[in-house]
Amino acid sequence: MVDFSMIEAAAGRLAGKARRTPLLRAPLLDALAGRRVYVKAECLQLTGSFKFRGGWSAISALPEEQRRRGVIAFSSGNHAQGVALAAKMHGIPALIVMPSDAPLPKLENTRAYGAEIVTYDRYTEDRDAIGEKLSRERGLTLIRPFDDEQVISGQGTVGLEIAEQAREEGIFACDVLVPCGGGGLTAGIALALEQKAPGFVVHTCEPQNYDDAARSLAAGERLAIEGHAPTICDAIVTPKPGELTFPVMKRLCGTGFAVTEDEVRAAMALAANHLKLVIEPGGAVALAAALFRRQELSGDSVIVVASGGNVDPELFARTLAAGGGR
Amino acid sequence: MVDFSMIEAAAGRLAGKARRTPLLRAPLLDALAGRRVYVKAECLQLTGSFKFRGGWSAISALPEEQRRRGVIAFSSGNHAQGVALAAKMHGIPALIVMPSDAPLPKLENTRAYGAEIVTYDRYTEDRDAIGEKLSRERGLTLIRPFDDEQVISGQGTVGLEIAEQAREEGIFACDVLVPCGGGGLTAGIALALEQKAPGFVVHTCEPQNYDDAARSLAAGERLAIEGHAPTICDAIVTPKPGELTFPVMKRLCGTGFAVTEDEVRAAMALAANHLKLVIEPGGAVALAAALFRRQELSGDSVIVVASGGNVDPELFARTLAAGGGR
Repeated sequence: MVDFSMIEAAAGRLAGKARRTPLLRAPLLDALAGRRVYVKAECLQLTGSFKFRGGWSAISALPEEQRRRGVIAFSSGNHAQGVALAAKMHGIPALIVMPSDAPLPKLENTRAYGAEIVTYDRYTEDRDAIGEKLSRERGLTLIRPFDDEQVISGQGTVGLEIAEQAREEGIFACDVLVPCGGGGLTAGIALALEQKAPGFVVHTCEPQNYDDAARSLAAGERLAIEGHAPTICDAIVTPKPGELTFPVMKRLCGTGFAVTEDEVRAAMALAANHLKLVIEPGGAVALAAALFRRQELSGDSVIVVASGGNVDPELFARTLAAGGGR
Repeated sequence: MVDFSMIEAAAGRLAGKARRTPLLRAPLLDALAGRRVYVKAECLQLTGSFKFRGGWSAISALPEEQRRRGVIAFSSGNHAQGVALAAKMHGIPALIVMPSDAPLPKLENTRAYGAEIVTYDRYTEDRDAIGEKLSRERGLTLIRPFDDEQVISGQGTVGLEIAEQAREEGIFACDVLVPCGGGGLTAGIALALEQKAPGFVVHTCEPQNYDDAARSLAAGERLAIEGHAPTICDAIVTPKPGELTFPVMKRLCGTGFAVTEDEVRAAMALAANHLKLVIEPGGAVALAAALFRRQELSGDSVIVVASGGNVDPELFARTLAAGGGR
């Protein structure tokens, strides 16, 4: 199981490769949220999301011989870009299996990072089966998006930075809101903060119809979401929490939050206006929770992870033009 | 005249107040520009632009007694917000004289930072006369937007950070492109780099119809722009370089660049897509020059200042929806 020393080791491998993203604040956003809102801007990470950390961590942890043969990943987009760039920077081939309806910029960017792309239909085909078949045929190592110890360790480096940056700001206890898909980022951050900032409580944040983490945490066991309700939060659409991530989340996380699509749009517009950040819908759920679940939070500060910024430009433009729909 | 020690002193007063903004890069943007493009993201500064630095620098340099009576500023928006927040953080009153057609978010935000606002018609009224009358009547100290030694010194702290951050990236000689209105930011950065990174050459960047700095530099004397051509680059619309700033620019700057409105829009869209930054038109002229004047630059790296992000959300949305107009 992932332990703190693995996160520290990942931080060592990521040094000088990943960006130490800033912890930002805007006085006018604080006024809206009713407390100081510190935004960990992982949208400013290389490839526009935290996923580069996990991708680099996993690839750099492979034995040299195995790494040289290349890697494969299946992803709705951010993990794809993270793995693609990490592979390119290592000088090894990457094959990415992507849903055919992934946002166009994510497809284009993944290709631009030098990866080979295979698409599949996310409603009728089994991405795991496709990925494993290609992996076997070509001798590629599968880099899973969240149920992988080295990936979780890499995402955990976000937590190390949050602990350091919060200390600089004089914050010693607060809620930490994290966008949650399979739980790699959440589990990694929770493990890092357990050691480095024990007064912090991590909460998962999800779109309303994909709040499998919140429900699973409430039930104490992994529950799956039924159906395929449409959502703009493509980056964090997962049916249930991961096998490796859930035990960590169950041990360390507080109550999960679910936010509406309108709240996500409003958070995106406010982030653009006040923080000057482009945050994608799935990356804005935590900020949405900070803004629109303020009575369920405590303390005079909250830390929010803005996990990615790879939004389709047209969707982003519509969201801003509508003033965030609120 | 401003000298390097004043910039260092301003940096001391700004420590722990202004944000040390990141120097960002995106591999896919580098590919478009044909070299590494390092973006000094001053849009992430408090109040969404570098102007907070100058405002804080000037206010914090006033004698206690004078400061307590309050300050006044005239500004198209960013200087207004910078002075308003700096005054609020000092606990003193601020009166801001703004053009009545300033972008709404700039007006609203300036008010939200606690400043009193007086508007004027920028085509028929003389803002200097209005500002000086109010200043005299209420005993307020006028904080000029660029022709003020302490303001220039505060903006110069951007240059100190660029020098440090460039050194960390291993850059020892390159062009530094700076959006230029009255020249406070340009002159401040040029003075800082003269001491701290003498291999760097600062270039002014302006919209095509407001390239008074470029023309003045070419002529060796301060020339004024004729007419009032419409431009989206409201933040850097000035008729001519400042009295204090121009001699510095003349001594230290290379050739100035002028970019078209379409190039500015394209730069804004590319910054949103690849850097996840919201940059306002006037703040995007330097990035536009890096992208669309590449044959006039040399070396494998260029540093670009993204000076602000306070764009009207509807204009920003239209710009993104049109794919930057290119």
